[in-house]
Amino acid sequence: MKPFVIGIDIGGTTTKLGRVDRQGQISLRHTLRTTDYPEIDAYIDALGAAIRTMTDTQPGDCTGIGIGAPNANYYTGEIRHAANLPWKGIVPLRDLLQKKLHLPVTVTNDANAAAMGEMRYGVAQGMRDFIVITLGTGVGSGIVSNGQLIYGHDGFAGELGHVIVKRGGRTCGCGRKGCLETYCSATGVARTARNLLRQEKDSLLNNLPLRKIDSKAVYEAAVRGDAVARHIFDVTGTLLGEALANFIAFSSPEAIILFGCLAQAGDLLLEPVRQAMNRNVLSVYAGGTRLLVSQLAGSDAAILGASALAWD
Amino acid sequence: MKPFVIGIDIGGTTTKLGRVDRQGQISLRHTLRTTDYPEIDAYIDALGAAIRTMTDTQPGDCTGIGIGAPNANYYTGEIRHAANLPWKGIVPLRDLLQKKLHLPVTVTNDANAAAMGEMRYGVAQGMRDFIVITLGTGVGSGIVSNGQLIYGHDGFAGELGHVIVKRGGRTCGCGRKGCLETYCSATGVARTARNLLRQEKDSLLNNLPLRKIDSKAVYEAAVRGDAVARHIFDVTGTLLGEALANFIAFSSPEAIILFGCLAQAGDLLLEPVRQAMNRNVLSVYAGGTRLLVSQLAGSDAAILGASALAWD
Repeated sequence: MKPFVIGIDIGGTTTKLGRVDRQGQISLRHTLRTTDYPEIDAYIDALGAAIRTMTDTQPGDCTGIGIGAPNANYYTGEIRHAANLPWKGIVPLRDLLQKKLHLPVTVTNDANAAAMGEMRYGVAQGMRDFIVITLGTGVGSGIVSNGQLIYGHDGFAGELGHVIVKRGGRTCGCGRKGCLETYCSATGVARTARNLLRQEKDSLLNNLPLRKIDSKAVYEAAVRGDAVARHIFDVTGTLLGEALANFIAFSSPEAIILFGCLAQAGDLLLEPVRQAMNRNVLSVYAGGTRLLVSQLAGSDAAILGASALAWD
Repeated sequence: MKPFVIGIDIGGTTTKLGRVDRQGQISLRHTLRTTDYPEIDAYIDALGAAIRTMTDTQPGDCTGIGIGAPNANYYTGEIRHAANLPWKGIVPLRDLLQKKLHLPVTVTNDANAAAMGEMRYGVAQGMRDFIVITLGTGVGSGIVSNGQLIYGHDGFAGELGHVIVKRGGRTCGCGRKGCLETYCSATGVARTARNLLRQEKDSLLNNLPLRKIDSKAVYEAAVRGDAVARHIFDVTGTLLGEALANFIAFSSPEAIILFGCLAQAGDLLLEPVRQAMNRNVLSVYAGGTRLLVSQLAGSDAAILGASALAWD
């Protein structure tokens, strides 16, 4: 029987599942609306039923289930106080699902899952030292050193989105000020845009009401040559590149891999990131760390990342 | 035959050697003046002779040699462009010594050696995730995750003294600006003192000529209750604590261990470090990382650290 695993990406809006073989081929896909299940028991029932359908409709040997979810902890198997999920407090996700399915379940946070996915199926294949930075609504990270994910003593390592890059800077959802993610996430880009547009009147972005401006609108204006929009990417990229230069001093990775919606902006973002990173990195690391963008197809990347956990 | 190793600490002024057993007992010690050997070949001859004396004067089985040295690389066995050592360029230290002695030689930088020493003989015994910060002339670091030193893809990981903590801040010996070590090393403390004393006239430190002020003088004035000297430790500790809070977001260590001359200032430094670290750390890490001070006797710590390499 050909072995396979189930990869699950739990997001605030949708939960995506896939049946994945060793080569990273996804043969079956399924989606649940996370928000349809305010009670965790009903969610586990629905998830369990979806997994059963995947394991039973084709022959094969299911060797495990890997889950990426916000605030999920590899050691405890719990989701803790996830602001963007319907279930409050501490959810013993791994244990609930294991009890239902009698299959080994491994969970980790979404950024760590992305790093696992890159290592097994993506641009980090063959690398033993790299960092994945996820640039989405927030900024997350998965750090691999010596070929292993860094979980730290409690399973919560790798919160590089919450490294403080400006003392007394923007207020962050975490309650502190100046975190990287307040500037370099999709939300941060929109925030920078709204701040700038209060003064800058000569921009395509002024055709939109302020509250409608998001990173996609900034991207589209930048592609059309809008100077203010391009400046926003320059500012964002410079801050990110400065932060990455500091991260390199920590783990000296072979590559830093950008992942998520903002990374899709391409050279608009990458060029200022690369320049600021190279300008600020300690000389011993000069030219040693490549800046890459994830090549895994957006919708599959999270499922593949979660599935990689189950193989390990 | 009882097994032993030789631990060697190569410093800019002196080279210290010790014969060390598995329990960390140093039975023989020897010191060379590094500066007496401007030629690397003569240095290797003298070092080889000193090691031979240690291996041959007592019965036992020498299983290896561990060396901690500035700018030494674990992977290549080389010392590269060490500003404070007499030998310029790239010195293939490991290969030179192995050829002479026909014993396995392992080298790493001094901060990594300190981390190995803490893990085997010191306060990090039993820990799998911790960071050692060395506070001496400069600031160095050794990072252990999953029970392993983080070397990075090139062996140069863990240069936390060169994380930029103030954009456009003090000029650093590395050629950049605002590095942690320009503020939180012994040299940084003296620099802060000299800056402050240009305005502050009411301080015991004004009894010394400016150029004579070093971190020891600041410490002694602080112990005697001098307000300016205490303020210098507050400022230094706050900056260090803020930086440590960011480091925790990287590897979520069980402990951060301060090592080196400045760490000996005790609560004068530790209290502001602890307060700033706790005030700035992401809530998920709150109370999770202990702040400790190395308890290994100063002169032996470096030898023990280097010897720990040889056992591994």
